[in-house]
Amino acid sequence: MQEVSTRLPESARGPGTRTAIAARIAASLLRAAGSPAVALELPSGERVCTAATVPVATFRLADRAALLRLATSPERQFAELHVEGRLTLVAGDLVAGLRELLLAQAPATQYGLGAAWRRHWDSLRRKSLLVAKRQASVHYDLGNAFYSRWLDRTMSYTCAYFTSPTATLLEAQLAKLDHVCRKAGLHDGAEVIELGSGWGSLALHAASRYGARVRAYNVSREQLAHARMRARQAGLQHRVEFIEGDWREATGRCDALLSVGMLEHVGPAHYPELGRLAARLLRPNGIGLIHGIGRVVPEPVDGWIQQHVFPGTYVPSPGELMRVFEPAGLAVLDLENLRPHYARTLACWLENFRQVREEVAALQGPRFARLWELYLAGSCAAFEAGRMQLYQVVFGTPAGSAVPWTRDHLYRPDPRTRQWTAATS
Amino acid sequence: MQEVSTRLPESARGPGTRTAIAARIAASLLRAAGSPAVALELPSGERVCTAATVPVATFRLADRAALLRLATSPERQFAELHVEGRLTLVAGDLVAGLRELLLAQAPATQYGLGAAWRRHWDSLRRKSLLVAKRQASVHYDLGNAFYSRWLDRTMSYTCAYFTSPTATLLEAQLAKLDHVCRKAGLHDGAEVIELGSGWGSLALHAASRYGARVRAYNVSREQLAHARMRARQAGLQHRVEFIEGDWREATGRCDALLSVGMLEHVGPAHYPELGRLAARLLRPNGIGLIHGIGRVVPEPVDGWIQQHVFPGTYVPSPGELMRVFEPAGLAVLDLENLRPHYARTLACWLENFRQVREEVAALQGPRFARLWELYLAGSCAAFEAGRMQLYQVVFGTPAGSAVPWTRDHLYRPDPRTRQWTAATS
Repeated sequence: MQEVSTRLPESARGPGTRTAIAARIAASLLRAAGSPAVALELPSGERVCTAATVPVATFRLADRAALLRLATSPERQFAELHVEGRLTLVAGDLVAGLRELLLAQAPATQYGLGAAWRRHWDSLRRKSLLVAKRQASVHYDLGNAFYSRWLDRTMSYTCAYFTSPTATLLEAQLAKLDHVCRKAGLHDGAEVIELGSGWGSLALHAASRYGARVRAYNVSREQLAHARMRARQAGLQHRVEFIEGDWREATGRCDALLSVGMLEHVGPAHYPELGRLAARLLRPNGIGLIHGIGRVVPEPVDGWIQQHVFPGTYVPSPGELMRVFEPAGLAVLDLENLRPHYARTLACWLENFRQVREEVAALQGPRFARLWELYLAGSCAAFEAGRMQLYQVVFGTPAGSAVPWTRDHLYRPDPRTRQWTAATS
Repeated sequence: MQEVSTRLPESARGPGTRTAIAARIAASLLRAAGSPAVALELPSGERVCTAATVPVATFRLADRAALLRLATSPERQFAELHVEGRLTLVAGDLVAGLRELLLAQAPATQYGLGAAWRRHWDSLRRKSLLVAKRQASVHYDLGNAFYSRWLDRTMSYTCAYFTSPTATLLEAQLAKLDHVCRKAGLHDGAEVIELGSGWGSLALHAASRYGARVRAYNVSREQLAHARMRARQAGLQHRVEFIEGDWREATGRCDALLSVGMLEHVGPAHYPELGRLAARLLRPNGIGLIHGIGRVVPEPVDGWIQQHVFPGTYVPSPGELMRVFEPAGLAVLDLENLRPHYARTLACWLENFRQVREEVAALQGPRFARLWELYLAGSCAAFEAGRMQLYQVVFGTPAGSAVPWTRDHLYRPDPRTRQWTAATS
């Protein structure tokens, strides 16, 4: 393997042969990317790397056209070419390589005038209920069979909570459900409204373990069918109601309002509306909890993710996130950043996915399998590199008195947690 | 006592006698204030209350001029007249009365155009080092003797942390110091920079209990003299350096950056500057902690407090607070709202103050004693009513790895905490 630090490879210094030109382009691309510890392998077999250290991943470009496409729009084409199978990992680790690429570049912070304008524009882009439903459908109606292949058996598709270095994904997902239920102060007979209920794990856990009565809203029919089946199987259909509806359609009053992993689909234009809805739904001493992916600084979502994985998604900085609570006069009581937990959750999903990758490729095509692997690996890398964070926010009325004075109750041993290895909701 | 609900008192319905007019004015004042459960006693002895419930406090107006002044500018004149001794509590409880007054009125949220303009204007009002020093001097150079009369013996003048309903103020202040040191991950040999060190309790605690080396900045000479004396008495002068200087003058690098109760004096125009300084001072895996009073929604500080108690103070909403961290690219790792703890801390201070009130009045005049009592009682009421909150924020680099994955270490028994009743720093 030929290393290039700040110098170009031997061959590139010769006359302008095709290989030499390709090596020059690759080196200049890598330098523009901040010289991450990754190498590009050219069609000629030559490897180019501009980092001072050994590359953690080497990506092979299938042909010259792929290199030229990469040069025109590096971030987008990196993903596109990977999905097409024309940019492939030939050495090292995919997550490590993507993390290096992210760490080498500063986030595209949005503090300039243009950025302010773009955000203003985004803030006007309100979603109709139909658009919200269609956007959710793209991702969540891929089929329960697909997700059940690589999620844990609670079908939790949000950040888990690893309370020990040896916790399995299943244990960590159950610990997350408990952490959320405890933060929200759930108790026997508590009335809960859940906004965005996925395959139902939190609603069923809240009912079966905490005795809560839950009304859970979701727009994905695939997920709803699965969640309702689980409720019937567990004999919880009288305590948990899965309602086909957008979060904006939620009605009634509750002691606890939960929303785990839905904020990503709400869109910043709707944050104040979500907060006002929460303020209406919560009883005076009620507790709300919103759990969602965020940023450190305002930054647009990657265009490729928007187009191919999560249409209409947006993940806020803490300042943007506060637009949920402030206009509604809701007090932020607790915020916990679970970033490393999501990196680990994604690493578990990726490992699971790779075990069924060939199966997925056979059923849904190799292109889809590559797309999904890149999405999971890229998300894992983004959490590892700190480009994405996970904010779990507890909120309530400004002078609410139901919240315990300290958080130590969240960390006391609980009989419920001892049942983790037993069958659960 | 004559109660007026929605009806005016008997006397007010007669011909326009002076007393009847005064009662009408008082009733209309109370209604404009949202009909809180407080009564006004007129110079004639008549009591007016527009609430549907029994008043929790009755305030006597000394003369007709006092009533007219109250009518012109209720919020400001309530405080002014109290300090002058012309509006006095004659029945009920001062804190409860002030809380009722706060709860009856919605906060003056700043979401309109005028408010946006005012905030823009505020954001331009930068403080010179000299102004910052003068403003701090007004409050903190009142004399160590004065503060030592009613603070606990650690001389902590910030929100305490009550881990049990029976904790004393001293225990709660020591628990706060431990909570802060634990959140910041202090350990033997850790290098700490503290911005705004008061009378030195946190710096000395970090050094004596956690083995940290501390450099602490403060602009108040009275406080510095006291803190240095304590360091010498404890034999800690080689581990703790108290430096006369504004936070903006801090230099060097540290493992932990602490700032407890200083943010109130920073001013929103300087939040990004504070964040950038923190980012410079913190080592890559360093942890920062900022503890300060805040709001639920952006709201100006009471004009009377600004003029007589804390010149140049500002307390932010969470969204405003994030302007410390976001522009500097710092990740918010944990936010805990300690609102009820500050209400209780203030109740303790008020109780202590009342025991030495006559002494203070003899030394510093009755006007000062009334001012201070109103400030403590009003602050207590503001926390009880949820108009003020207390945010304790832990922050670090976006991908920092030194922060524990869970917060349970904050709640484990610690040998240090068992020494609470023994003599401490």
